[in-house]
Amino acid sequence: MICPERNSVSKWVQYFKEENSNLTVEVYPNDTQREKTEFVVAWNPPEDAFEKFPNLKVIASMAAGVKHITSKKIPKGVKVTRVKDDYLNYDLSYYVLNAILNYLRDMPLYFQQQQKNNWKRLTYKRPEDVTVGILGFGNIGQAIGKLLVKNDFKVLGWSRSKKKVEGIETFKEDELNTFLAKSEVLVCMLPHTPETEDILNEELFLQLPKGAYLINVGRGAQLQEEDFLKALANGQLSGATLDVFKTEPLPEGHLFWKHKNIVITPHTASITNPKTIVPKMVENFKRMQNNEPLKDEVNLEKGY
Amino acid sequence: MICPERNSVSKWVQYFKEENSNLTVEVYPNDTQREKTEFVVAWNPPEDAFEKFPNLKVIASMAAGVKHITSKKIPKGVKVTRVKDDYLNYDLSYYVLNAILNYLRDMPLYFQQQQKNNWKRLTYKRPEDVTVGILGFGNIGQAIGKLLVKNDFKVLGWSRSKKKVEGIETFKEDELNTFLAKSEVLVCMLPHTPETEDILNEELFLQLPKGAYLINVGRGAQLQEEDFLKALANGQLSGATLDVFKTEPLPEGHLFWKHKNIVITPHTASITNPKTIVPKMVENFKRMQNNEPLKDEVNLEKGY
Repeated sequence: MICPERNSVSKWVQYFKEENSNLTVEVYPNDTQREKTEFVVAWNPPEDAFEKFPNLKVIASMAAGVKHITSKKIPKGVKVTRVKDDYLNYDLSYYVLNAILNYLRDMPLYFQQQQKNNWKRLTYKRPEDVTVGILGFGNIGQAIGKLLVKNDFKVLGWSRSKKKVEGIETFKEDELNTFLAKSEVLVCMLPHTPETEDILNEELFLQLPKGAYLINVGRGAQLQEEDFLKALANGQLSGATLDVFKTEPLPEGHLFWKHKNIVITPHTASITNPKTIVPKMVENFKRMQNNEPLKDEVNLEKGY
Repeated sequence: MICPERNSVSKWVQYFKEENSNLTVEVYPNDTQREKTEFVVAWNPPEDAFEKFPNLKVIASMAAGVKHITSKKIPKGVKVTRVKDDYLNYDLSYYVLNAILNYLRDMPLYFQQQQKNNWKRLTYKRPEDVTVGILGFGNIGQAIGKLLVKNDFKVLGWSRSKKKVEGIETFKEDELNTFLAKSEVLVCMLPHTPETEDILNEELFLQLPKGAYLINVGRGAQLQEEDFLKALANGQLSGATLDVFKTEPLPEGHLFWKHKNIVITPHTASITNPKTIVPKMVENFKRMQNNEPLKDEVNLEKGY
């Protein structure tokens, strides 16, 4: 298991042993049987880690994203799987709903007022009057959209290929402008690929309605930080809730921390639960041993 | 119109004139035709105000609550109506949903961490794992319950007489203990009557599961403040979101303001919208003129 920055490694090891006591589970870099290792579980591994396993067959990402793996050197023929956790959709959806409701009610401002003992009533917006656009309308994006529709929001979905979801107006690749022009709240749920880097930039912000609100639960690399701060300053964006950042943890003193219109959560919109993930990894381990097709395998060309 | 503390009186007058230009609308205490006045619209009127209208027939409360009227001297035979606004249910429901989602995600703590540039991940609870008890299960309480069920919460409802609502376990007067013992989040939505004053007290808190969360959208008079602070201090309650207070505005320096486990909003869970209320009042004005039964009349014995 290769997972720097993960402080819950021992829990993962425990769940693997519980799931199958015959498994040999070791934690990099203190592992002793690299020659034999065929299956690696990883989160944000060191650049050259995989090359140290001559018999490696499968790398299982500990998260939904795989950029932290695909950006490293992957030996030829090695397969990569990612996490597809129903709770991931569930948790992300409620995170987004919560972020939007806080925006409609100006909750960040109320928190600031409370600290000053300031009793000042603010008006609010209603879900039925707000249109939310979901940029990246795959598996997770659709789950978010469905929860929002259930809560009375008007919902739009954009993805490369047009999707069909009841009650949601969907847009395809070349309809991005129309989609953005209607999105009063923009939820970024795109996968991290070379095409999506810095996609949340000045040009995109200018296509949103004036005063739009941004929620980024995609990847930090998708947000052009200078353009973003500029859009907040000139009112093109009225605020944002961010769960992901170019550098994580977000460095102390970073301008985002103190900005009164930015809500920051430390990449916790969805926390992978080893309890539900580990059985799926063990299942893939068996499939690998039996030369069967893996579940949730990543298309390494597309990057997701 | 009698409405001290309301700074939006002119808007109300305007809506009345728009609804029916034949109406004579005056604002107390600068009104000139008290002898003729039959219909008064009021919010928190002075103690003796109503006695000054010898021909008064109807007092229309500008809010859902009527305690601000029924606690004053009401001349014999005068009827009282209250506001029944669909948006009131709608807005209160989303306020409560948002307050619970913030609790599940520890959002107040994240706001505090953000100010210290502190990147610390916290675990969260899921809606499906949380039981919410609604104390006061009338018209509004049921609307809140339905929205919470739709969002995957387990919901309980308590009221004097047992109600039937699909997907919700309901309790009647003498089943309060059973109801409280299951309520991990307690939403107070009781009307303000002599029986409900200080009902949120130590004895009640002790019947909740340890670490329960309180949301008060009923009335401030229902919360025994010392007992409440004690319950927070000893962990019987883990926190609270309060929209109503014994004294409003909540005085500067009040202990609630600085408490890190209390979220304060300045009585804004639902803001009465004159645009939707005024037509209903004008309708009741006509009914009064025609000696027809009024809509949304208050039972003055019960007090709601």
